[in-house]
Amino acid sequence: MIKEFYVSTEDRYQLIDITDRVEGVVRESKVKNGLVLIFVPHSTAGIILTENESGLKQDWLAVLEKLVSGFDFLHNKIDNNADSHILSGLLGQGKTLMIENNRLIRGTWQQIFLVELDGPREQRKIIVKIVEC
Amino acid sequence: MIKEFYVSTEDRYQLIDITDRVEGVVRESKVKNGLVLIFVPHSTAGIILTENESGLKQDWLAVLEKLVSGFDFLHNKIDNNADSHILSGLLGQGKTLMIENNRLIRGTWQQIFLVELDGPREQRKIIVKIVEC
Amino acid sequence: MIKEFYVSTEDRYQLIDITDRVEGVVRESKVKNGLVLIFVPHSTAGIILTENESGLKQDWLAVLEKLVSGFDFLHNKIDNNADSHILSGLLGQGKTLMIENNRLIRGTWQQIFLVELDGPREQRKIIVKIVEC
Repeated sequence: MIKEFYVSTEDRYQLIDITDRVEGVVRESKVKNGLVLIFVPHSTAGIILTENESGLKQDWLAVLEKLVSGFDFLHNKIDNNADSHILSGLLGQGKTLMIENNRLIRGTWQQIFLVELDGPREQRKIIVKIVEC
Repeated sequence: MIKEFYVSTEDRYQLIDITDRVEGVVRESKVKNGLVLIFVPHSTAGIILTENESGLKQDWLAVLEKLVSGFDFLHNKIDNNADSHILSGLLGQGKTLMIENNRLIRGTWQQIFLVELDGPREQRKIIVKIVEC
Repeated sequence: MIKEFYVSTEDRYQLIDITDRVEGVVRESKVKNGLVLIFVPHSTAGIILTENESGLKQDWLAVLEKLVSGFDFLHNKIDNNADSHILSGLLGQGKTLMIENNRLIRGTWQQIFLVELDGPREQRKIIVKIVEC
């Protein structure tokens, strides 16, 4: 089973909580036990699990910015988003989680986030694939 | 098949080799071919593969500390562990590996580690899910 | 289904596009729908998805080098590659992707790369496992 949905973003770097959307897909699938792969088919965005707390979301952006600051990127002569590509690759564009009894297994403080790294964008695609087993 | 076990940690940041525990779960499952997902349902811990060498384990901690030092984190006004959340998200809280002939596929220098990032903790839960295919 | 192939590398740090090789394995598998795990059984190499643009590949190396520079690594007294191990663990040694209608799901700018972090090496092994579901 595969399902897609879209998210719009407002800032160049932004964390957007997609936990409810992903859990909705799991519920509707009626799959009892299996794996779920949450994936963005983009190379300037990422998927992470972290706590949804407003201060922490800003802290994340500060760390991400520092990781790619102070460089004179060659790619920026073509397209001004070397930072976005590199952060996307560092965070990863997909996460695999477990389903048990039709529930996504995650910790209390593990919310699922799309990390926008080259926004704003009207449509960031998220693909959720559920594998029963 | 899903199995949980717990690990206690002693330091704020610490690498703990869980290879034997994970391989024990694989062996007991009797699954010949499939995938295994090793996951911590925590947002201040991670799972990595690296070599189990005492110097390298300390080198890891030095790099992790530097990644999150020099910031005035907003989240720390609520809970003093923004660093832990961010490192957990950077490392990832799960890894997917392969099983062939009931053996976990990994390189000689690839040991599986729980990375404690907000210890010490009495019980860090590790969930191992094995999918036959 | 599991398939291995080998890649030779020329530099200490290097990004090598393996998209065609992985897509060839998917095609030959004739699997219509499933998951594919691309994995290196090495602890001084990684797998990432990023754009195959020559400037960006150099930008990646600059960021990786900076992440592990300025340290006096203990592991280097034994083997001069603490940087390689740590970067390998940060990037991750495997990525899980989806297959739909016998095609690997990936974005236009998401090429699959082996990241050599302790080269040159004559043979870096890549293992591709495909799970039908």
